[in-house]
Amino acid sequence: MTRRALNLVPFVSVANMMRLVNAIGVERFLTDLAGFVEEDFRRWPAFDKISRMASHSADGVIELMPTSDGVTYGFKYVNGHPKNRREGRQTVAAFGLLADVGTGYPELLSEMTILTALRTAATSAVAAKHLARPGSRSMAIVGAGAQSEFQALGFKALIGIDRLRLYDIDRWASEKCAANLACYGFDLTICASAEDAVEGVDIVTTVTADKHNATVLTDNLVGAGQHINAVGGDCPGKTELHRDILLRSAIFVEYKPQTRIEGEIQQLAADHPVTELWRVIAGEDPGRRSRDQVTLFDSVGFAIEDFSALRYVHSKLAGGDFHEDLDLLADPDEPRDLLGMVHRAQRNELAAAS
Amino acid sequence: MTRRALNLVPFVSVANMMRLVNAIGVERFLTDLAGFVEEDFRRWPAFDKISRMASHSADGVIELMPTSDGVTYGFKYVNGHPKNRREGRQTVAAFGLLADVGTGYPELLSEMTILTALRTAATSAVAAKHLARPGSRSMAIVGAGAQSEFQALGFKALIGIDRLRLYDIDRWASEKCAANLACYGFDLTICASAEDAVEGVDIVTTVTADKHNATVLTDNLVGAGQHINAVGGDCPGKTELHRDILLRSAIFVEYKPQTRIEGEIQQLAADHPVTELWRVIAGEDPGRRSRDQVTLFDSVGFAIEDFSALRYVHSKLAGGDFHEDLDLLADPDEPRDLLGMVHRAQRNELAAAS
Repeated sequence: MTRRALNLVPFVSVANMMRLVNAIGVERFLTDLAGFVEEDFRRWPAFDKISRMASHSADGVIELMPTSDGVTYGFKYVNGHPKNRREGRQTVAAFGLLADVGTGYPELLSEMTILTALRTAATSAVAAKHLARPGSRSMAIVGAGAQSEFQALGFKALIGIDRLRLYDIDRWASEKCAANLACYGFDLTICASAEDAVEGVDIVTTVTADKHNATVLTDNLVGAGQHINAVGGDCPGKTELHRDILLRSAIFVEYKPQTRIEGEIQQLAADHPVTELWRVIAGEDPGRRSRDQVTLFDSVGFAIEDFSALRYVHSKLAGGDFHEDLDLLADPDEPRDLLGMVHRAQRNELAAAS
Repeated sequence: MTRRALNLVPFVSVANMMRLVNAIGVERFLTDLAGFVEEDFRRWPAFDKISRMASHSADGVIELMPTSDGVTYGFKYVNGHPKNRREGRQTVAAFGLLADVGTGYPELLSEMTILTALRTAATSAVAAKHLARPGSRSMAIVGAGAQSEFQALGFKALIGIDRLRLYDIDRWASEKCAANLACYGFDLTICASAEDAVEGVDIVTTVTADKHNATVLTDNLVGAGQHINAVGGDCPGKTELHRDILLRSAIFVEYKPQTRIEGEIQQLAADHPVTELWRVIAGEDPGRRSRDQVTLFDSVGFAIEDFSALRYVHSKLAGGDFHEDLDLLADPDEPRDLLGMVHRAQRNELAAAS
């Protein structure tokens, strides 16, 4: 970014985020973003890690997810309202901010509904890169909602998945997903059941939306050596996998204290052994221990991934026209003269009108 | 607000906040805003009360201050960086948001640097209205920074203070304050010391900025029956009053758990009796008990005041031109078709370019 007036904060609207994603290309965007996620996971101990701050109501939840690496501060505002879909709204809508820790001044405000879909997929693909069997080519996706295509493209871009088997209880959703992916060269099959979808694949991604304890997968469906990417279960009372699957998997999570509450492992004892993914990426844990081991990434989404995503978007703004400048910060000539600034604004407006 | 496209969030920029304040008039704005603060303090038990979420660094702090009344959710982002003043930046800069609890969708994004100054003054004036001796006319202000003029105008608008005695260690600041207040009809004196300023006044407002335990007032300076409005001491390690003043005052606070950590009362035992201001406003506590009692409002700023301020600004937007519409929320025709929306944006852009 070039030097800007102190009152202005770069803002990436939804329209500009779509322009940025299209200019870079979805697959390239996911690959580059995954690089930022890996970089931040590798320096995990440098971050302030705070479980999200949630405000629950009968209809859903509103959350603030802050973090900081000591130089830059970031937070995301995100809601989760399952009923929204019936009213033509997004179940999850989000925006986020980066700020300079040294001054407290914001450096970026950005839409994050699209960006959250991208960072979730990029993080899942990073996990699979480190946990799935080398040479994995095929993936089942159970649940063909807004996140499904991003998962498919993330896994294609990062580890070369090119065979997809889709299942959704609503066939329209599978067809929508297949149509959106048509131009990306997958060998894609719409399946009649979850059982059908998952048979023989290298990776199983579960990304269903219902807010209750469901059983999208039972233990008998999971084959030796499969990697499970469990994305849909992400809040208390919302899980997707039968408990028996968890008991025979090597489980990897983002941030233990949060995942114990929100992830699939809420079904397990509080001391059940799980490994934080950053340890595998940083080389502190071997990850998968054999070709036959079932590995499970119990994804719930963590603030550091949003931080990585905002940091990536911020890095792409210099010299481009993918942002507007938002007049968000009062900037009097003299910081102690806030009322004087208000008075001068009035005089200027009166002068301009006369 | 008229019905708007789902993706758009009304945004009040700094320029528009100044236009709104000038259109309403600072004193009227403070009076109306005080009404909203009183209304929300009266229904205090209806709010989710959460101590602010702070990220501390060597240079300052970045905070998120959320609250909810079950219908509307609000939060403020605010920093506190004392060194900023030396670099021509605001020590405190802020913005805030209101959202619908039922959908999680934002309803207002607003600058809050100016608005925080206004809500702090309005809250102080509300406290004095309920705690100062009836008929109070004179006030000392110790510390003539950005907040000082707003305090003066809030007390004039709400309880009729028309005699001011100013003191700041930097005479320039006092002169700046006096100049900004010149058009409001105060009988105003710039004083050579805090002692000189506070003698004989009905109300003493302390609003200094240094981030350490200072002693702006000693006990011998405080006269019987005075009301002290202590605004500057608002974080751990930052206080303004000598402990002896606290020991002989009836102390009123916003939210006990937060003020014990951040307010003047951090100097006292954790069980020292204090009264939450909302109880006085709601008629549950008598407040001042005699003309000779020293009353003290130990102000630190609480999320509900920001909520009231955002609610007031939101109420003034309908039909006016004091906001822009911000393209903050992704709004696909079908919520499950987020990638399809990104694809269509590209096709539309290509079509527009050809």
